Amino acid sequence: MLRTVFFISDGTAITAETLGHALLTQFAQLEFQQFRIPFIDSQEKAAEIALKINQQAITDGQCPLVFTTMVDQGLIATIAASNCQVFDLFAAFIKPLEQQLGVSAKPSVGAAHGLVDADGYEDRMEATNYALTHDDGMNIRFDDADIILIGVSRSGKTPTCLYLALHFGIKAANYPLTDDDMDESRLPAFLLKHKDKLIGLSINPERLSEIRQTRKPDSRYASLRQCRYETETAESMLRLSAVPVLRTTSSSVEEIASRIILEKNFQRPHFRYDIV
Amino acid sequence: MLRTVFFISDGTAITAETLGHALLTQFAQLEFQQFRIPFIDSQEKAAEIALKINQQAITDGQCPLVFTTMVDQGLIATIAASNCQVFDLFAAFIKPLEQQLGVSAKPSVGAAHGLVDADGYEDRMEATNYALTHDDGMNIRFDDADIILIGVSRSGKTPTCLYLALHFGIKAANYPLTDDDMDESRLPAFLLKHKDKLIGLSINPERLSEIRQTRKPDSRYASLRQCRYETETAESMLRLSAVPVLRTTSSSVEEIASRIILEKNFQRPHFRYDIV
Repeated sequence: MLRTVFFISDGTAITAETLGHALLTQFAQLEFQQFRIPFIDSQEKAAEIALKINQQAITDGQCPLVFTTMVDQGLIATIAASNCQVFDLFAAFIKPLEQQLGVSAKPSVGAAHGLVDADGYEDRMEATNYALTHDDGMNIRFDDADIILIGVSRSGKTPTCLYLALHFGIKAANYPLTDDDMDESRLPAFLLKHKDKLIGLSINPERLSEIRQTRKPDSRYASLRQCRYETETAESMLRLSAVPVLRTTSSSVEEIASRIILEKNFQRPHFRYDIV
Repeated sequence: MLRTVFFISDGTAITAETLGHALLTQFAQLEFQQFRIPFIDSQEKAAEIALKINQQAITDGQCPLVFTTMVDQGLIATIAASNCQVFDLFAAFIKPLEQQLGVSAKPSVGAAHGLVDADGYEDRMEATNYALTHDDGMNIRFDDADIILIGVSRSGKTPTCLYLALHFGIKAANYPLTDDDMDESRLPAFLLKHKDKLIGLSINPERLSEIRQTRKPDSRYASLRQCRYETETAESMLRLSAVPVLRTTSSSVEEIASRIILEKNFQRPHFRYDIV
C-alpha cells in the first residue's frame, strides 16, 4: 500500500521535500507517493490543501503524512486540522535554538525564502554565463576560471560545471581531452599553466560505453575498446601531471560538486539559501 | 559576536545546511559563521572534526552549533563529545515516523545519499544537453521541448532553463524576442504552434537596466528607455496570445522554476534526492 506524503511550504518547499524524503529513505521497506506543494502563503490556499488532504485520506484509507517548513503557525493549524499527521520541521528546533542562543526567534516568512540576495545572485549568474562560454573546450583562455575540469567526452564535466556555477557562483570551465592531446601523452600547455585549477574526472569504461551507446549506438566512439583506451590514457596523463582525479561512476552531480569544493578548499562563496 | 555553526553529514551535507540555515534566518538579530563539512563517514574523520570544533570553541569563547543529518549514531556521539550543541535533524523525526508507519526504520547510509538513480540521472543529463542546445534561440525547432521560456534579453531565461533541466529533467528551451519580432507585434509562428508549452518571463525595466549596465555600460541596450520599450512590447505580445507570464524581478531561480512547474502542472518527473 502506497502511503501519501505532502511536502508543504510558503516557499518552494524544496527544503521540506529534501529533508522529508531523506527521512523516508530510512523506511526502504515501504513505498510512498510524494507531492511537493509550494507557495501556500494564505489561509485560502491552506484550506484548499486541507481539503485535498482529506480527499486523499479517503482514497487511501489512511491519513497522509505532511512535512512542512512553514513559519506561520496559523497556516499549519489549518492544515493540521485535516486528516493527516504533520511533521513540523521548524518547530522541533526553534525552542532548543532559542535556549542555546539566549534570544527569541523572530518568525519571519520573508527571511526564510524568496528575497534575492543581490550580490550572490549576480555572481551565480555571471558564473553560469562563464560556464556556458567555457564549456567543452570552446574557449581555452582560462585566466578567469576558478576551476577547470578535464576528462573524456561524457564523463560528467558539463553538468558538474553548470551545477558549480548555478549553486555556488564558481566559475567552472571544462576541457575534453582530444585525440591529438592523447597522442601527445601529456596535458597541453594552456592547461598546465593553470595547474592549481585543474581537476580530472574519471569514469569506469563499461559505464562510459553504456552512456555513449545511448548517444551514438554501435559507433567506435561508444565501443568498450575505445572507452578503455580513452579512460586509461586520460588517467595516466592526469597522473603524470599530478592532477587530482575524482571518480564519477556512481556519484551524483551534487556529490561531485561537493568533492571538488572540498578538494580545492573553496571558501563557500555564494550558496543561496532562499529555497525554503 | 559571531556564533560558529557546522553543518555535518556523511553525504554532501546540503540537506543539513539548507534546513539549518533556514532555522538560523529566524534569528535575524544574530550573526553566524557557517561551515559545511561533507563526507564524514568514519570515526577517524569524526574525531578530526571533533578536534576542530573544540579549537573553534576556544577561539570563540562559546560552543559552536552543529546541525547534522548523519544516520550513524556512533559518529554523532564522537562529534557530540566535543564542546558543541548538536541538533540531530534526523533523530527528532525517526521515532514519530516509526509510530505513524508502524514499522522500524532500517538505518541505511547508502539509501540516504550517493547512489545514482540511473533513470532519473540519464533524463536529467539529456535535459541539460537539450537546454544547452536550445538556449537563446540558437535552435527554434521545439518539437521535443517540455517548455519554452520567452522574454527579453537578461530576464532570467537561461539559468531557469538550466535549473529545470539539471534538477527536474525538464527539457526547457528559451527564445529571446528579437527586434524583428517586436516590430511584428506578435509572437512568431514557430512559437505559436507550441502554445501550450509557452511561458513568458517579465522583469521590471529599472532592474533590467541595472543588470544590462553591468554587461554593457552606457549602451542603448542598457538604457532605461530601451528596457521600458522592450518589456512593455514583450508583455503586450504575450498577453495578446494569452501566454502566462511570470515576474522574475525579485524571485530566485529556484522560485521561478517552482512556479513554472506549478503553472504547467508538471508531474514531478525526476527530482534527485541523494543530496543528504
